[in-house]
Amino acid sequence: MNMDKPRARQGSRSVSSVTADKPPGEFELIDRFFTPALESRAADVLLGVGDDAAVLRLAPHLDLVAAIDTLVAGRHFPVDAPPRSIGHRALAVNLSDLAAMGATPAWATLALTIPSADAAWLGEFSGGLLQLAQAEGVALVGGDTTAGPLTISVSIMGSVERGTALRRGGARSGDVLVVTGTLGDAGAGLALVSGRLTTADGGAAAYLVNRFEYPAARVNFGCAARGIASAAMDLSDGLAGDLPKLAAASGVGARVDIARLPLSAELQSLLPLESARELALGAGDDYELLLAVPGARLDELSAAARRFNLMLTAIGELIPGQRIEWLRDGEPHVVTVQGYDHFR
Amino acid sequence: MNMDKPRARQGSRSVSSVTADKPPGEFELIDRFFTPALESRAADVLLGVGDDAAVLRLAPHLDLVAAIDTLVAGRHFPVDAPPRSIGHRALAVNLSDLAAMGATPAWATLALTIPSADAAWLGEFSGGLLQLAQAEGVALVGGDTTAGPLTISVSIMGSVERGTALRRGGARSGDVLVVTGTLGDAGAGLALVSGRLTTADGGAAAYLVNRFEYPAARVNFGCAARGIASAAMDLSDGLAGDLPKLAAASGVGARVDIARLPLSAELQSLLPLESARELALGAGDDYELLLAVPGARLDELSAAARRFNLMLTAIGELIPGQRIEWLRDGEPHVVTVQGYDHFR
Repeated sequence: MNMDKPRARQGSRSVSSVTADKPPGEFELIDRFFTPALESRAADVLLGVGDDAAVLRLAPHLDLVAAIDTLVAGRHFPVDAPPRSIGHRALAVNLSDLAAMGATPAWATLALTIPSADAAWLGEFSGGLLQLAQAEGVALVGGDTTAGPLTISVSIMGSVERGTALRRGGARSGDVLVVTGTLGDAGAGLALVSGRLTTADGGAAAYLVNRFEYPAARVNFGCAARGIASAAMDLSDGLAGDLPKLAAASGVGARVDIARLPLSAELQSLLPLESARELALGAGDDYELLLAVPGARLDELSAAARRFNLMLTAIGELIPGQRIEWLRDGEPHVVTVQGYDHFR
Repeated sequence: MNMDKPRARQGSRSVSSVTADKPPGEFELIDRFFTPALESRAADVLLGVGDDAAVLRLAPHLDLVAAIDTLVAGRHFPVDAPPRSIGHRALAVNLSDLAAMGATPAWATLALTIPSADAAWLGEFSGGLLQLAQAEGVALVGGDTTAGPLTISVSIMGSVERGTALRRGGARSGDVLVVTGTLGDAGAGLALVSGRLTTADGGAAAYLVNRFEYPAARVNFGCAARGIASAAMDLSDGLAGDLPKLAAASGVGARVDIARLPLSAELQSLLPLESARELALGAGDDYELLLAVPGARLDELSAAARRFNLMLTAIGELIPGQRIEWLRDGEPHVVTVQGYDHFR
């Protein structure tokens, strides 16, 4: 659509007839950066980028699983973040939502709002997104490119065997609470890139920044946890904010000992223990999975994690009632951080 | 996630425990304005708003059809547009994409980026979106609310009988080109609300502004056109910009007589014929359908349009080659407007 008056020009033009001395137009941009996704069209993509909508085929024994997540410049990533990492992150945060359902990702659409058509930026951005898409077997099947403040929404679609999706609401009192990987790394990485934290340890810094810029969605493990875990969600807003959501959805309380939170050696080398735990509880962006699992099946879940070289740590348990109880080395502890809320 | 440091507060909180003297938080907002969508949960929504992703069931004889479209404030609608109309439009432009495929819409997810959590604005916005969703049988199954410059992406999912989706690429030389409704109304409506056009005719102005603010997606007719039309697309960027896309996708050229463009009485009462045609060709936002249909089946398509009280107008035909030929009353004519391109 057009908020300006129609611009006069000579004759009509075909979509691709853009001469070299003009800035690339919308349709040429889409062609140039996202056509590779067309080439790798999967068999279940009957019609991909380039029509009014994509046409996709879901096998009859599967349920469709769908989510959408948005990244806003200056809020979900620093304005000057490497564009490759922004492209990666835009897809990764959505993959993480599907991982939390135990779903296998299949297709994505991209709504990209950018201030200007910067070919170098777009090349890096699309490279980061498409590389992850290829690695995870996701076909980019459609999109919408608009001019405006940098904002990226990815809509992801995937599937699970009918009736087997992992929900937040399946946990029972007595189930063990576990998390994948380590927590707080991304928060430290963000503090490093934004200059709030400095260190002489370049190796640790690089590790933590990478954890922030290139989050790994736990897709394979999420799928493997289906039928074993009783509930799951991904940790995007920090354990302190996210755990209450899983507990509330399941109608139970929870007890977590913060001394058991898995912290990377890199994080511990940079920060006092108390600060590291604060990031693990409240900083968000880790995109690890939080799961509930009946005690009798914990070994099975741990074995699944080992298959994907993923650490799994028991941090507490679900309890009757509605309260979230925080302990530190077994003693009651007041948690003074909360999950991220965009409007506070 | 959190670009700020974690904020200190006393203890943990449950998702809904927001006291009245604080601004509403993200999760309360989602609860308050989009929970009605949960109540009307369709049978094919196994899990809707409130988990990491939605779980949806598609009947085995159907293909999935998916699209995404974004509205940016100040670009796709005036910053001070009625929030109800913005909510309506955000869904309508996506419904229009599905209409152009002959698909039946079923589910939508919403990525809403707003500068602040303004309850009055959100009430109107969600009202406009949910009213249209209900009217069209669409369940809002998920979303993501973030703070930032006002940007709205809706991802829509629907279905068609396997293998029957209407594509842009099915037109053949000799097919008749038809459009639904009238063209240029939305362009005039936008000119009116933005003050570039004024009139003493309040009735005509109200009609045209309504056409801009509350576009009608031609969903029923799009579905009825499946199996009759050879190709279809929706007119979002103006006929001059959109027609070349349909022709190129079909590997044919097109010939259109601009004297045949359907113009509303209201548009003609406000503008000289030449200006009205310019809006019909280049202004966009009409969300009417452009279809190709074999001449022998034109009557059948017209009958389908009449069933939905929709005007259908033949404006030209597909021709061999790649050229788009514009005529005016049968004489060659140079079209000096083009479709909207966000980056020119």
